[in-house]
Amino acid sequence: MTSETDTRRLALRVVAMPRDTNQYGTIFGGVILSYIDQAGFVEARRHGCHRWVTAAINTVEFQAPVNVGDVVCFYACTSRKGRSSVTVTIDVVAERYMTNACVDVTSASITLVAVGADGKPIPFTSPPTVREPGVDGPIG
Amino acid sequence: MTSETDTRRLALRVVAMPRDTNQYGTIFGGVILSYIDQAGFVEARRHGCHRWVTAAINTVEFQAPVNVGDVVCFYACTSRKGRSSVTVTIDVVAERYMTNACVDVTSASITLVAVGADGKPIPFTSPPTVREPGVDGPIG
Amino acid sequence: MTSETDTRRLALRVVAMPRDTNQYGTIFGGVILSYIDQAGFVEARRHGCHRWVTAAINTVEFQAPVNVGDVVCFYACTSRKGRSSVTVTIDVVAERYMTNACVDVTSASITLVAVGADGKPIPFTSPPTVREPGVDGPIG
Amino acid sequence: MTSETDTRRLALRVVAMPRDTNQYGTIFGGVILSYIDQAGFVEARRHGCHRWVTAAINTVEFQAPVNVGDVVCFYACTSRKGRSSVTVTIDVVAERYMTNACVDVTSASITLVAVGADGKPIPFTSPPTVREPGVDGPIG
Amino acid sequence: MTSETDTRRLALRVVAMPRDTNQYGTIFGGVILSYIDQAGFVEARRHGCHRWVTAAINTVEFQAPVNVGDVVCFYACTSRKGRSSVTVTIDVVAERYMTNACVDVTSASITLVAVGADGKPIPFTSPPTVREPGVDGPIG
Amino acid sequence: MTSETDTRRLALRVVAMPRDTNQYGTIFGGVILSYIDQAGFVEARRHGCHRWVTAAINTVEFQAPVNVGDVVCFYACTSRKGRSSVTVTIDVVAERYMTNACVDVTSASITLVAVGADGKPIPFTSPPTVREPGVDGPIG
Repeated sequence: MTSETDTRRLALRVVAMPRDTNQYGTIFGGVILSYIDQAGFVEARRHGCHRWVTAAINTVEFQAPVNVGDVVCFYACTSRKGRSSVTVTIDVVAERYMTNACVDVTSASITLVAVGADGKPIPFTSPPTVREPGVDGPIG
Repeated sequence: MTSETDTRRLALRVVAMPRDTNQYGTIFGGVILSYIDQAGFVEARRHGCHRWVTAAINTVEFQAPVNVGDVVCFYACTSRKGRSSVTVTIDVVAERYMTNACVDVTSASITLVAVGADGKPIPFTSPPTVREPGVDGPIG
Repeated sequence: MTSETDTRRLALRVVAMPRDTNQYGTIFGGVILSYIDQAGFVEARRHGCHRWVTAAINTVEFQAPVNVGDVVCFYACTSRKGRSSVTVTIDVVAERYMTNACVDVTSASITLVAVGADGKPIPFTSPPTVREPGVDGPIG
Repeated sequence: MTSETDTRRLALRVVAMPRDTNQYGTIFGGVILSYIDQAGFVEARRHGCHRWVTAAINTVEFQAPVNVGDVVCFYACTSRKGRSSVTVTIDVVAERYMTNACVDVTSASITLVAVGADGKPIPFTSPPTVREPGVDGPIG
Repeated sequence: MTSETDTRRLALRVVAMPRDTNQYGTIFGGVILSYIDQAGFVEARRHGCHRWVTAAINTVEFQAPVNVGDVVCFYACTSRKGRSSVTVTIDVVAERYMTNACVDVTSASITLVAVGADGKPIPFTSPPTVREPGVDGPIG
Repeated sequence: MTSETDTRRLALRVVAMPRDTNQYGTIFGGVILSYIDQAGFVEARRHGCHRWVTAAINTVEFQAPVNVGDVVCFYACTSRKGRSSVTVTIDVVAERYMTNACVDVTSASITLVAVGADGKPIPFTSPPTVREPGVDGPIG
């Protein structure tokens, strides 16, 4: 088990929409947390084609709100690699709708575990253990 | 600023639906995190009728998945009260669809801050600072 | 077939969000009806681990609107138990966002039928007939 | 206040999608109830351009499930006209995905009330009392 | 392969809701495009009970916005029939919330292909190749 | 009015989820079209902080389906710049869940127009004409 820092990659990029708002008219924190969870998966998948499950989310501190119309970027880097698990750091940046200014929204750290068909942790350097749904299916 | 432990209350109770699933067929972790965020708001609101914003989410460790059809309970208690902020502990319990057995899903700790109309922190013991949307509106 | 009145239990508790609004800015009645349907299921499940299908919804009268930010409680009690079916009464109460005042929104009565694998009604005192999806699956 | 029967009109027509399913894989009853509520509004609007609120839903009996891929039709007719309120009957018919066969799903009766800006009932023969949101807005 | 023009039919009819809005407060163009795609499927299905996949969407020109509360109609007609594919023209009309006035929103042309279980194009005059999900399932 | 080709940029990157599926179990084409519309907005915004409305979508040809769990990238480049309008080309690429292989899904071309407060086209080189919602609002 080693500790290392990786260069960050753009894991997700989305537009914040009115359906994502809370009772205050800004984007609901739960929506941001959902994307953080997905961004962790996107980064973890780079380390092996397995089922990756979220084991823990470490401290998330919100520094600024996200507004409707903002473009929100989720940058991920792998900050720790274990045998079955990786820890991913996610930086969330909002590009403001009006000004295109970039604002730091939050940073989060999330740990994901590679699991096999029986749900037990497996080394993520194992050969791929997931089967694409409908991989041979038709277009459309 | 004092530290104290409160009795826990049922903040939210929902049924897990197919639209909430991830690519593995279990409930998407982001959906659970969204409810944790809402449950924090529900508990914080007891301390004053203000706009409460999520300042931080401390460690969340997932112990068990949530399945489609499970009834999911979010129990909240206030674990710390500051001047403008409260820290809320959320315990998530799934009542299994088949057996009605209760399974611990996760525990989380979340800090919320009361803010005024200008977004600046205010003492949460202040008189109410929010106005109900449509409070005098018609039924329907 | 007997008629009886039960004590009421909190079946569901949710926060009303902007995505649930109608064209008037209050919560869409269809969203409330959806939760009433789920609350009926939550109560019926107490009588047996079966597939429960909604056979009928009796009169629902709306007394007050639900606003964004309100915490909405769905209290259920079993008002009639048959052989295959139960009738559940649902009381909906909104805790107002600004004042925490509790307002009666509506009451509804809903009949659910326990059905077997072939969709035919079965006595709900039968042993469990549903299998939990992914009951032995991994965490996450 | 008179009682009359109207010819039925197609109020809504939608495709049932996977995101609308319940834990049994058929379409969630709450989704059908939401469309019934909307179909009542569509019919009521014919009687005056007002804010119409759902006052009551009378018995809804489910006769058949709706499946993913079905095209679902909501036929509405005004069965009673009062001074401020109308009662609308909704017939729900599913066109099966595989066979195009039409199956009766449910019938419902719903009462809507025209209300003014203060939420008080008004005669629905009044001149229009609603203002279109963004009525002069740009395309897109 | 022949070219022909058909009479148009009402493929879909929906109410535009707040959750469908974009950052400008009008209905998000992507929501309209989603319904156009569904309307193409509804029309194509008339030509054979197969899996129909969208092969292409030809020019869509937006002439007017859709507002919250509008009833939106999608009229479809088959403008071209090939061996495996059909081209469907979709006219989108909004019935304005306030005035009931009908406004042309857009017209689109969409080509769908009938495919078999292996995803390969098949003549759409073939006997039905789809199986209804849960066709023998229970009510509810 | 000039014609030019730009380098492409990653406008959006998302994970395809079960709630986005059609009746065939692959991702609903309407969901992809919605993201194409958003990606056009993301690119257009680079040319001026205005309200941009979608005027037309030119041919979209689907080459491959998107599956649940795929990471979907929307690359945008400005292919034509007018006075009030820009034409944006969007290339959609799916990174397969199982193999991380990149598959071309579709290409689309979309024209957006900058409009002022009155909805009339304006030169997009004008000073910013949009106001950020909640730009001075609190965090959360």
